[in-house]
This record gives sequence, C-alpha cells and structure tokens, in this order.
Amino acid sequence: MLNTEFIAKLQEIVGKEHVETDKADLICYSYDATQRKFLPDVVVHPGTSQEISRIMQLVNEHKIPVFPRGAGSGFTGGSLPTKGGIVLVMTRLDRILEIDEENLVATVEPGVVTEQFQQAVEKVGLFYPPDPASLKFSTLGGNVAECAGGPRCVKYGVTKDYILGLEVVTPTGDIIKTGGSTMKGVVGYDLTKLMCGSEGTLAVITKIIIKLLPLPEAKKTMLVLFDSIDGAAQAVSAIIRGKIIPTTLEFMDGRTIDCVRQATDLQVPDDAQAVLIIEVDGDREFLAKQVGKISEIIKPLGVVETRVAETPEESEALWQIRRSVSASLRKVNPDKFNEDICVPRSKVPEMIRKIEVIADRYDVPIVNFGHAGDGNIHVNVMIDSKIPGEQEKADKAIKEVFREALALGGTMSGEHGVGIMKAPFIPMELTKTAIDYMKTIKKALDPNNILNPGKIFPSD
Amino acid sequence: MLNTEFIAKLQEIVGKEHVETDKADLICYSYDATQRKFLPDVVVHPGTSQEISRIMQLVNEHKIPVFPRGAGSGFTGGSLPTKGGIVLVMTRLDRILEIDEENLVATVEPGVVTEQFQQAVEKVGLFYPPDPASLKFSTLGGNVAECAGGPRCVKYGVTKDYILGLEVVTPTGDIIKTGGSTMKGVVGYDLTKLMCGSEGTLAVITKIIIKLLPLPEAKKTMLVLFDSIDGAAQAVSAIIRGKIIPTTLEFMDGRTIDCVRQATDLQVPDDAQAVLIIEVDGDREFLAKQVGKISEIIKPLGVVETRVAETPEESEALWQIRRSVSASLRKVNPDKFNEDICVPRSKVPEMIRKIEVIADRYDVPIVNFGHAGDGNIHVNVMIDSKIPGEQEKADKAIKEVFREALALGGTMSGEHGVGIMKAPFIPMELTKTAIDYMKTIKKALDPNNILNPGKIFPSD
Repeated sequence: MLNTEFIAKLQEIVGKEHVETDKADLICYSYDATQRKFLPDVVVHPGTSQEISRIMQLVNEHKIPVFPRGAGSGFTGGSLPTKGGIVLVMTRLDRILEIDEENLVATVEPGVVTEQFQQAVEKVGLFYPPDPASLKFSTLGGNVAECAGGPRCVKYGVTKDYILGLEVVTPTGDIIKTGGSTMKGVVGYDLTKLMCGSEGTLAVITKIIIKLLPLPEAKKTMLVLFDSIDGAAQAVSAIIRGKIIPTTLEFMDGRTIDCVRQATDLQVPDDAQAVLIIEVDGDREFLAKQVGKISEIIKPLGVVETRVAETPEESEALWQIRRSVSASLRKVNPDKFNEDICVPRSKVPEMIRKIEVIADRYDVPIVNFGHAGDGNIHVNVMIDSKIPGEQEKADKAIKEVFREALALGGTMSGEHGVGIMKAPFIPMELTKTAIDYMKTIKKALDPNNILNPGKIFPSD
Repeated sequence: MLNTEFIAKLQEIVGKEHVETDKADLICYSYDATQRKFLPDVVVHPGTSQEISRIMQLVNEHKIPVFPRGAGSGFTGGSLPTKGGIVLVMTRLDRILEIDEENLVATVEPGVVTEQFQQAVEKVGLFYPPDPASLKFSTLGGNVAECAGGPRCVKYGVTKDYILGLEVVTPTGDIIKTGGSTMKGVVGYDLTKLMCGSEGTLAVITKIIIKLLPLPEAKKTMLVLFDSIDGAAQAVSAIIRGKIIPTTLEFMDGRTIDCVRQATDLQVPDDAQAVLIIEVDGDREFLAKQVGKISEIIKPLGVVETRVAETPEESEALWQIRRSVSASLRKVNPDKFNEDICVPRSKVPEMIRKIEVIADRYDVPIVNFGHAGDGNIHVNVMIDSKIPGEQEKADKAIKEVFREALALGGTMSGEHGVGIMKAPFIPMELTKTAIDYMKTIKKALDPNNILNPGKIFPSD
C-alpha cells in the first residue's frame, strides 16, 4: 500500500479528481482482455506530458512501479498492474491535434480511439489502414505500444509502418521527441520504431505523429469457399504472385466454418473446408478487372463457390460472417485462449494440419482463422476452464502450437505482443543472448525497473 | 600502432591472407564518398559471423576500435576509421543465400551489391524497391546500416521497410538473430529496425532477411517542365491527393536545369524553372489512364511542356537527364557538398526560396534537386575549396540550410545519415535529453565504445 503522503503528491501533480484509490475504482483498472486480474494501489489520470514527467520523477524516488494503460483491450496482459503500484490511464489525452491534409500527416494524443481517428481522417478523404479487431475501443497509444495489426495489413502494413514520430516520457521522467513529421529521417537511432511494440516498457507515449494515405476510391469484397485448406493457402500465394496484393486475405478453417454455421443462418455447402475473404481496393474501374483476374487465378485450386459483393451492403454481409466468428466460438466452449502465431505464408496449411494433430492429442477443440496473407493465424483453444484438467491441457496444447510455429520458421506472435502471457515462452523463440541484448537496453533506460515491469521478459 | 601479437591473433582468426597492414592497402580503406581520409592500423576481411564474433571478443580485451565497411560509398563518413584501429571489410560475405519465391522473402549476406540483388530478384519476377543513387556499387549491409532511400521511396518506402530480420554480431561479440522471415512479428523489442540507420554503431550486420514485392508489370515515365518551383511543388501534392502515388516524383530546380543545359544538349524552353520526373508503375493497361489523370491534375499549375515516354528507350532518355545532373554540377565548381535535408512536402517551395537567399548571402552556388514526393531535397553547395575562404562560406551556408529546414519542421538528413559530417550539428535537431537517451543505449550495448566510435553523436 502506498502512503498518504505519496498519494497527496500524486494529487498535487494531476489534481485530486484525477487520482483514484477506492477499491471499486481500482477494480475497473485491474484487468484486460486476458481476464487476468491484478489490483493496482492507485489509478492516476494525467492530463499532460508534463504531469507524466513529474510522476515518473516521483516514482523513481520511491521505486513505485507504473503501468500505462489505454483501453485495456490487449490480449497478452501488457497493461496489467502485475506488481501493484500506479495505473497510468492515458485516456484524458484524447485529442486529435492536427490533420495536415496537404502533407498527409496527423498528430494525435495516445488516448484517441482508433476507429474515431479513422473516421476523422476519412471525412477529409484520407486513410489510416491499421485495423485491429479492437478498433472500436482500443486507443492509438495502445496500438503503437503493441504494434497492432489487422486484416488490412497484408496490403498496408502494421501500425509501426504509419508512425513517423512520437513524444514520449522516458522511465526517468524526461520528455523527448522521436522522429518527426517528414516522410524520411535518419538523424540518430530510430527510437520511434523501437517504441512501437515495446509494450510500454521503454517510455510513456504522449503524442503520436501518423502518416496517412489517400482514401482508396472504392473496394470490392469476395468470399470464396474452398474444398481444402491447401487450396485456400495456394490461392493466397497465387494471387500475390499474380501481382495483386489484396487489402485483406482473411481465412477460416473448417472448424471455424462449422462454428459459424451453428451460430448463424450461414448457408455453406458441406464440402467447404476453408473460406477466404478477399477484398481489393483502389480505382473503381480497375477493381472489376482485379476481381476477374483473382477468380481466374484461383479457379483450379478447389473452389466450391465464389460470392462477390456488388454493393456496400452485400460487402457488409460477407464481412458479417467473419465478424460472427468470435461470438460463435463461445458455443464450442466458454473460455477462449486466443494465440496469434505467424508463419511464412506458404506454411499455413502445414501449420493448420499440425494444429489439428495437437487438438486431437490433447482432446481440446482448436479453431483457426486469421490473416492468411501474412501467415498470421489466430489459434483459438476453446475450453471450459471450470472442468478440472482442461486448463492444463490447453496450456500444453498452446506450448506445442508455439513449438510447431517456430519449427516452421514462424513466431509466437504476429500482433498481440508478449506481455505476461507469452513471457514464459519467449526463450523458445529468442536465444538468451538476444533476450539479454534487449534487457540491457531496458535496464539502461529504466534503471529502477519501474515502467511496466514484469512484461515481455521471463522472470529471472 | 597495433603490436604484432595482436595482428597475429587477427590472422589466426580470419587467415593470414585476409589481414592487410601495408600502407598502400590501408589507404584503399581510408576514405569514402566524403573525401575525408583516416588511415586504419589494419584491414580485416572476415568470412563468417563466427570470425567476426571472435574479432569483437578480441578487440574488447584490447580496447581497439572496429569500423565495419561495405563499399564505402556513404556521404557522411559512417564507415571511416576515424580513430585508427581495424577496418572490418564485409565484402567477402557476398552471397545471396535464398530467394524464397513462394513467400517473397530473400536472405542475403551484407556484402551483396544492391543492384546485383535487384537484378537477381527481378529475374524471377520479384522486386526490391529501395534504389539509392549508389546502387551499382553500394552493398545491402551499408544500405541497412544507413537506411538508404532513393527515388522510388515515395511509393515504396525506404530500406528499413523491407528488412524483416537480421543476424548481427553485437559489440561484445555475441551472435544474435533479430526479427525473422515472417511478415509480422512482435516478440520482444524491434531490434531489426533499431539496427537500420544505426550506422554500424550497435552491431555488425552479418545476414539480412528481406521482404520482396511482385515486380510491377510495367512503368511509364513523364518529364514535366513548370514555370515555377511552386507549380512543381503544388503538382506533387495535387497528384498524391488525386489518389495517385507515383513510383517517383523527382524534381530539379532552375539552377539544376541550367547546369544540365550547359553540360548536355538538353533542349528546354527558357521559361522552365522546375522539372518533375514522374514515373508510375503497375498494371500496363492502367498506366495510360494514370498518366492522363496526372496530366489533367497538373495542367493548371504552370506546365510549360510535358514529355511522355512511349517506349523503354524514351523512358531511359528522360532518366538520362536526371542522371546527368551530378556530372553537370562539376562545371559549376569542382567541390560538391551534398546535403539531404527533408521537409514536409508542402514546404519544398519555401525551403528552396530560403536556400536561394542563403546562396546569395554567402555568394556560393547551391543547386537543388531530389525526391519531391518525400520533401527530400539534395542541397548541393558547389565551391572550389582551393580558393581561400570558400570552405568557410560553404560551412556557414550549410549550417543555415539545416537551421531553415528544422524551422520548417524538417530534418537534416532524409537518407544519408549523420556519420561524422553532421554529428556536430545534431544538437540543432535533437534535444540533449534525446541524444542522451540514444547514448545510453549505445553505452549499454557497447561498454568499451569500440564499435564505430565517433559516429552520430557529437564529441563530448
């Protein structure tokens, strides 16, 4: 527990009304999408980077840990206050400071909700592509900290690819600017990209400079049913080799189709063993030609049926199938462990087959869908954790999924990050020397280990 | 001077034939494109990362500085052995290890020459976009270390955007892998991007995993003459806002046109005050439409003349004009100081006007051309340094160019890096706290400051 003098100092910095210590309030900031719970000692809502700087100086004196938090929508516990201390809620910093239409650059505060930002730039004909599934509530600060992805990344890249510069408060309380608002810049180390995906362990993000694109004129969506996962995977490679990089190349495996079929009135032939949702965007005229070319490329690969949306409403209906997946999984089992391995694109079918073997071996249902264009598979291990032994089976299955992904030249996480959930496993992916190199950076920049401690690195 | 025992140990590690100590040999590795000269004590040509690891362990014992070097084509002295010691020539590591056509990923050693790599991937229908002017001789390791750019970056991004993973030898001699060969990955800090542009100060690059694209089907080149630099700059913004992102948007100012006119038989109307070379690539059919749309967009912006290449030969002739610029500058004055500031795209005309004022103030010819689409201006201060006082005037003019670029929200370097040439100026761009944050990283990873010391950071 923190003493009242310390709390009083926090109140002095941010204002009394922005410091919470009541247990009911603390509980609100004790969890994220992992459903793990850790109670902080105090929740602080700073309003400026100067306030955050003063807080960081104060906590360094007292060695109190600080856990920055946006919407708390992460899947790996990156924002959880695992060691008590302070939760630093960034949502008061929620202004879009500038949308520079001439230079296609925006400056925002970290608490801006991703979808609201996307809508704001689309209103003036611009485009911010990264689209994590959480975009209706997740914040841009969190997106940067975790380097969020999404379906559109196959064509447009991940969050990092759009971050030109940052203002951050360092673990020791300095306010620094990284990068800038130019399209290029090579003066000094690229701290901007180092921050992206560092899960709030190297600095608190207080401002974000974002690169925008012109909004594509139109898009066209197709849903294609394949008789095998191999056919779908071959289609992905064949489309890209055909010089078309679709906006999205989302896939669902046979188990996912079963789930959706059971949960909705989706009519799908029985022999459909995989689905691809393919969306292309760009010049309106050109899209019809692209759809034609895609249909031709994939024809020999076991296509059971192709549905092409002719209107925005029809497109929406096709995407509705994809969106119904998460809810439909709950019919399988109440508890979902959602991993997001990524393998080389061509290894997706082999990976899916290996996951099927693992599911059988441990007798746990595993449902796979995700971003086939990137080789990024969302592996959902579905259990009822109230049944004794189920959690252990799930843990073993997940570890084995990681092992197989790594054996195929993949990674444990394409977009969710490490947090606390994957921290115990990272020695499977990174050598001790690589982890030590990273820890050396962390230790040098945060000598008291007070900024988001316990994340990414396995505990010693 | 290094003692014979130390040299013998180096010979033992890499083989006698790969260690050079004759002065004539040392001179070959004493300079780069800056024309500054620093003689190393010894030149070593390692053949494997294991050898480099052993060298780094050895030099840490003896506190001997090591300077990694590719082709030595850098413009800022990044590879110069400013403190004697060892030049580590990476060109024996010159194999293309794999081109994975299925996953659009290649693995190479750092000594591969950029153009040779581009040709190798184009042979199988793939594409590596970054195209620094030095591509005929510069190596991929150097491109990564400096984060090289080039004309095509406006559409395709810089070197960093294509680097998925690395194998590096750390300053203390560990061999580590960063990133991987998947399209996404968020396990641990992004050391890959941290290495890109760190100018060989954080590790020695020994392997590079590169993302490729499908080779565009065709390209189309136009050369447009404008009656003012403002018109050309407005054209750049208008084209991008018109939802066309050309492959290149190269500009030349009035002085550049004069140089080229004098040096070649280029026929250009007298009222042409700026040139844009616009190239679009992609689907063959679609390109004609894009060229038409561009012509329409730029028509009201003071176009004097538009030339559209109808054949590859005609395209080559248009590019020949751009390529003749560097040689033609020598007619102005023998010594060129080539800076590469970058400003927000819309600020290019203002920046050019400010440079003209600076050129008049110090009475030095300054010729500007470069990548207008990125706001990346190559500012060429042309002097005859044998004339007393000229160098001082150039130095003052360059410093003022930096000041004005920064005042417009720009940076001192878009693609050349800092090295030793800009190191004294970086406190103009970065605050002391930002520099300290970077130096903290450097110091933690290279406690003996033996890997490429004296680069990037101003001397204390």
